[in-house]
Amino acid sequence: MSSAVQTAVVGVTGYAGAELARLLLNHPRLKGAPPVFAGRVDSKDEARGGIPLAEIHPQLAGSHTAGLKLESFSWELLASRGVQVLFLATPHEQSRQWVPEALDRGMRVIDLSGAWRLADGANRAIYNFDDEGTELADAIQSQAVYGLPELHREQIADARLVANPGCYATSIILALKPLIATGLVDLDHGIVADSKSGVSGAGKAPTAKTHFMYAADNLSAYGAFTHRHTGELLEQIALDKSQIVFTPHLLPIPRGILSTIYVRFNTEQTTENIAKIYRDFYAASPMVRLYNRTLPQIQFSVHTSYADIGFQLAPDSRRAVIVSCLDNLLKGASSQAVQNLNVMQGWGEAEGLQ
Amino acid sequence: MSSAVQTAVVGVTGYAGAELARLLLNHPRLKGAPPVFAGRVDSKDEARGGIPLAEIHPQLAGSHTAGLKLESFSWELLASRGVQVLFLATPHEQSRQWVPEALDRGMRVIDLSGAWRLADGANRAIYNFDDEGTELADAIQSQAVYGLPELHREQIADARLVANPGCYATSIILALKPLIATGLVDLDHGIVADSKSGVSGAGKAPTAKTHFMYAADNLSAYGAFTHRHTGELLEQIALDKSQIVFTPHLLPIPRGILSTIYVRFNTEQTTENIAKIYRDFYAASPMVRLYNRTLPQIQFSVHTSYADIGFQLAPDSRRAVIVSCLDNLLKGASSQAVQNLNVMQGWGEAEGLQ
Amino acid sequence: MSSAVQTAVVGVTGYAGAELARLLLNHPRLKGAPPVFAGRVDSKDEARGGIPLAEIHPQLAGSHTAGLKLESFSWELLASRGVQVLFLATPHEQSRQWVPEALDRGMRVIDLSGAWRLADGANRAIYNFDDEGTELADAIQSQAVYGLPELHREQIADARLVANPGCYATSIILALKPLIATGLVDLDHGIVADSKSGVSGAGKAPTAKTHFMYAADNLSAYGAFTHRHTGELLEQIALDKSQIVFTPHLLPIPRGILSTIYVRFNTEQTTENIAKIYRDFYAASPMVRLYNRTLPQIQFSVHTSYADIGFQLAPDSRRAVIVSCLDNLLKGASSQAVQNLNVMQGWGEAEGLQ
Amino acid sequence: MSSAVQTAVVGVTGYAGAELARLLLNHPRLKGAPPVFAGRVDSKDEARGGIPLAEIHPQLAGSHTAGLKLESFSWELLASRGVQVLFLATPHEQSRQWVPEALDRGMRVIDLSGAWRLADGANRAIYNFDDEGTELADAIQSQAVYGLPELHREQIADARLVANPGCYATSIILALKPLIATGLVDLDHGIVADSKSGVSGAGKAPTAKTHFMYAADNLSAYGAFTHRHTGELLEQIALDKSQIVFTPHLLPIPRGILSTIYVRFNTEQTTENIAKIYRDFYAASPMVRLYNRTLPQIQFSVHTSYADIGFQLAPDSRRAVIVSCLDNLLKGASSQAVQNLNVMQGWGEAEGLQ
Repeated sequence: MSSAVQTAVVGVTGYAGAELARLLLNHPRLKGAPPVFAGRVDSKDEARGGIPLAEIHPQLAGSHTAGLKLESFSWELLASRGVQVLFLATPHEQSRQWVPEALDRGMRVIDLSGAWRLADGANRAIYNFDDEGTELADAIQSQAVYGLPELHREQIADARLVANPGCYATSIILALKPLIATGLVDLDHGIVADSKSGVSGAGKAPTAKTHFMYAADNLSAYGAFTHRHTGELLEQIALDKSQIVFTPHLLPIPRGILSTIYVRFNTEQTTENIAKIYRDFYAASPMVRLYNRTLPQIQFSVHTSYADIGFQLAPDSRRAVIVSCLDNLLKGASSQAVQNLNVMQGWGEAEGLQ
Repeated sequence: MSSAVQTAVVGVTGYAGAELARLLLNHPRLKGAPPVFAGRVDSKDEARGGIPLAEIHPQLAGSHTAGLKLESFSWELLASRGVQVLFLATPHEQSRQWVPEALDRGMRVIDLSGAWRLADGANRAIYNFDDEGTELADAIQSQAVYGLPELHREQIADARLVANPGCYATSIILALKPLIATGLVDLDHGIVADSKSGVSGAGKAPTAKTHFMYAADNLSAYGAFTHRHTGELLEQIALDKSQIVFTPHLLPIPRGILSTIYVRFNTEQTTENIAKIYRDFYAASPMVRLYNRTLPQIQFSVHTSYADIGFQLAPDSRRAVIVSCLDNLLKGASSQAVQNLNVMQGWGEAEGLQ
Repeated sequence: MSSAVQTAVVGVTGYAGAELARLLLNHPRLKGAPPVFAGRVDSKDEARGGIPLAEIHPQLAGSHTAGLKLESFSWELLASRGVQVLFLATPHEQSRQWVPEALDRGMRVIDLSGAWRLADGANRAIYNFDDEGTELADAIQSQAVYGLPELHREQIADARLVANPGCYATSIILALKPLIATGLVDLDHGIVADSKSGVSGAGKAPTAKTHFMYAADNLSAYGAFTHRHTGELLEQIALDKSQIVFTPHLLPIPRGILSTIYVRFNTEQTTENIAKIYRDFYAASPMVRLYNRTLPQIQFSVHTSYADIGFQLAPDSRRAVIVSCLDNLLKGASSQAVQNLNVMQGWGEAEGLQ
Repeated sequence: MSSAVQTAVVGVTGYAGAELARLLLNHPRLKGAPPVFAGRVDSKDEARGGIPLAEIHPQLAGSHTAGLKLESFSWELLASRGVQVLFLATPHEQSRQWVPEALDRGMRVIDLSGAWRLADGANRAIYNFDDEGTELADAIQSQAVYGLPELHREQIADARLVANPGCYATSIILALKPLIATGLVDLDHGIVADSKSGVSGAGKAPTAKTHFMYAADNLSAYGAFTHRHTGELLEQIALDKSQIVFTPHLLPIPRGILSTIYVRFNTEQTTENIAKIYRDFYAASPMVRLYNRTLPQIQFSVHTSYADIGFQLAPDSRRAVIVSCLDNLLKGASSQAVQNLNVMQGWGEAEGLQ
């Protein structure tokens, strides 16, 4: 079991970056080893170093962050600090460019973008990466492990590159995987995943859709049949496109995702049976909380690092509604990244996350 | 074509009551004929007459409402004022008790409760009415017309008792009826209706679930497989229980419903084909707005009397997501009631509603 | 008394523009005479004509707006339509440039910007107008009437240029003027006006401060001692800068302003005395609602065209807290503009506003 | 310096109780010594023991809280567990009754209610305590220390009874005390404290005012001149009633307080001078964060244990606006209680709070 490790966070200025900084600064294994914080190279403001972290994220101000600054990114910076694990909270394209060099320099990488999540080129097409199909990109992709510890704990432990999952994808995959793995679900009938996310999922850039007047007192569906998290669902649950419909919605709240998922079973089921399948599947997963009798709600998941899952069986015993909740900035992004760090370092999976 | 008519609203103290009062007071056909406003008999506060309307609903204060008061309900009151059309914004049980007498006294009734919406006793069972199965109740029920003008315009015109639809039911029925009426939908495959409603739908009584701290920054599913609006869906769209799953959710907004509805078609469809079916079905329906190219959002439907409908066809041409929005207090309750009044009186269906 | 009049709205694409369009389209005196709608010249999107009004503001769609389009602004357009009254919902600078020509062409102008509200050059300095101090600008300014009908009804009736007040200024001036006009307030002691506004007051442009994540679940003060509405307070209430402190705050709601105002009296007062002063002052003002016993709240003012005012006297009879509420898009902008139109045309002041 | 200590929380079912439980369960000095959790005696639900903590507050569920239950309160329970420090998150009256016995049994008490905050009977009158004026109550009161460590650190260290301050009072006292202590403020001129609080401050009981439909999209003032936190201001800042006006408002957000405070100085001041006064006063206070150049906002204070203070000087150098923010459930209640625990135990004042 390894001891303290030097981390760095690139792209700390976003919403997930703030939460990642907070978690790492409070992590019991990293006391006394604060991350190196660096800005995004494509952002003039962020590239210039020297801004106090507490000025970027005033909520993080305090004696424990005094003196911490955003530094100007360079490979030399990371090398001079002996960075061992690099968190990239950067745009997809930037992650595509940087990961090869980071690996080459011997760092392990936890990438929070969508750059390396998809093994199948057809699914990746939606990102339209510049380096798609190059030998280097293929070689990197083949090393990438999908960073959902509940499914890939062992590969993550040894991974050099962990592709941290999408927030919607996490909420849907964790809800469906146990039932599909046991073969109960009628896949030909098809699955509906109706997801609702808070506005932080849309990023920090001011746009017409992140304007308060657009999002507040509103609900809107978007990206039906086309959202790019769909590829993660297909690959991680082994589905075909005809077997699932996924529709995201923009909720008038800052953070939190709730997915309502509709399945039909091949045979009649009991509540007890389904509950046991979930319990067994997640017996060794401290960051999944299973609900009995009631359904999860966003209010109990936000500001926690858990994914919450519950379900209700239809009176006909052949259909179920599954509800899954998480905080898109935590289990949907930064606490998932820390959970991956814990697994990679051989630490307790829940350390620093409760 | 009839001229001004004397109306009364019983149960004006609730959220839908306030909107109904506002609409009737501004209705061009009712200028100079303000409704009689009466309280609910089961409420001590409301039963006592004399409270100014502007004290109950301060937003309605103004020179046009000066002098209007909540009156103590009695049949004599209604008779002495020559009430011809009675709006009941009362609890289900109260509507069950009062409608027989109101009809007996020659009034036409528009009932906003769930008391008389369901023709099938099996569907009504969830309400557990005291008078279920009595001869009188059956006779009244047989006269009731489901108050969705887009489906039952002609019967409403002649009806003595109009059962104003549920808010969720309106949003789902209007979205599905055109497609199902034309036989395109694969009913054996099943339909999913995932609905989200603002908090006003839960009523004015302070409860744990209407507490700001419960509803705000939250989303919760409730009543999966059991919500009592389900019966309206089955009866109005001619579905069997196995053919639809309906899950309501509580949105952290004051008003508005968005339903996301998932269907599979028997054969491949085109966007143009589906669009034409909706256009044809609602050609004579001024209170339905059809969206092309984009999907409706709650922000554009609230504070209007419209139901907004749009859809997106899957790339495989066999599935579609339909999105339907309305204001639960207006098209989901009080403007629907006024629309029914317009139809009953032979006035323009949209009068007073734009 | 004049009959229907041809109006035009330039800058209809903003939040206040949408409300102004709605009010004018429903105004009983303007039935059959829809306004000419034109875009802002400085905006590529808006300058290009032909976009349906219902596409810009989907909430306005309906049979009554079918066919209405945004037109490309030109003086010829306005002339060819015989525009008599021009509403400018344009940026300050654009209003400075256009008003001279509009007046020259014989139109009466109601300008919703801050361009012509301030008579004193020192107060105007904060706007830094290009044409400041020119002979033309001075001549125009001398004709401008501050468009608060409750204070300047008679001048507005005859005005060719009405400068529609700022939203904060309206809420504070209406609350203070009656007390100050009667000489009760100890001006040397100073007045505090602590105002809170919904986000629509910050305009439609997406910025860091209008991002949902910034505004939601938040409250922030800004512009203490420097907000440009201060000049309106000084001029309309005849105060010196040392006599008032005004601090605006950004509320996490779409619309509505509440101002909490603190005054000290020269002598002891009674609640009855103060209430009578307000009643007398606003006896002929249909768009001001006075509260007794309770204080106004934003929830009862939004979506109405009223300013609501109430107060509470201190136990020592020498101090009072005055609370004033209005909808910043209505009484703070567009319904105030329509109220000015009513006064200018000699119509009932409340027509189309209840 | 003492080591781990056995704590108990009575009244853990409320909003502040949930946060207090979370803080104590994560406190580094209390690892392995979870508090005893007990319900309120006057609540049937809570008095019955055995409910898992994770059922009462689902957000707290996790392996670290497995097995923790709400227990039925009794003095024997506390004695059998060796409780040394008792947190009371109970109604005022219950705290009045229980504190004498708790002290008698040798426990130190941190009381979060208003029961023991006020030394002056005239200020306490608003609570109308049953035991007012009894010898016992006077004796207890004389031992009580007002639990604001920034003002009374040394007395708290030795206190047996700490009266945790009110949330509004904390936000105002911390902002004003440094300036008043140095004699800069013109007290005869009077101070205005305009405070705005999220809904959690109104408690968990469902009432008309905590209904989502009342609080959402709204702002309302209440309790001007009469709010019971006023006494705390008078006693802690040594003011007379004529010297301050305090008006609380209900904000449409779950948590957070922002107070905007208006003062006049006896002589001209500089920004640097005022800033230095604050820096000096809070040099040894880790839970106060001072803002330069910008003003605090609620968004950066909520979910932290800090009080944030900033100010802006008027151009005339004689007046200032001071803005103070905190989380009413943390620095306004439970983290303040833990901060007091830290001081009482001689631990680092910020331990477990960053």
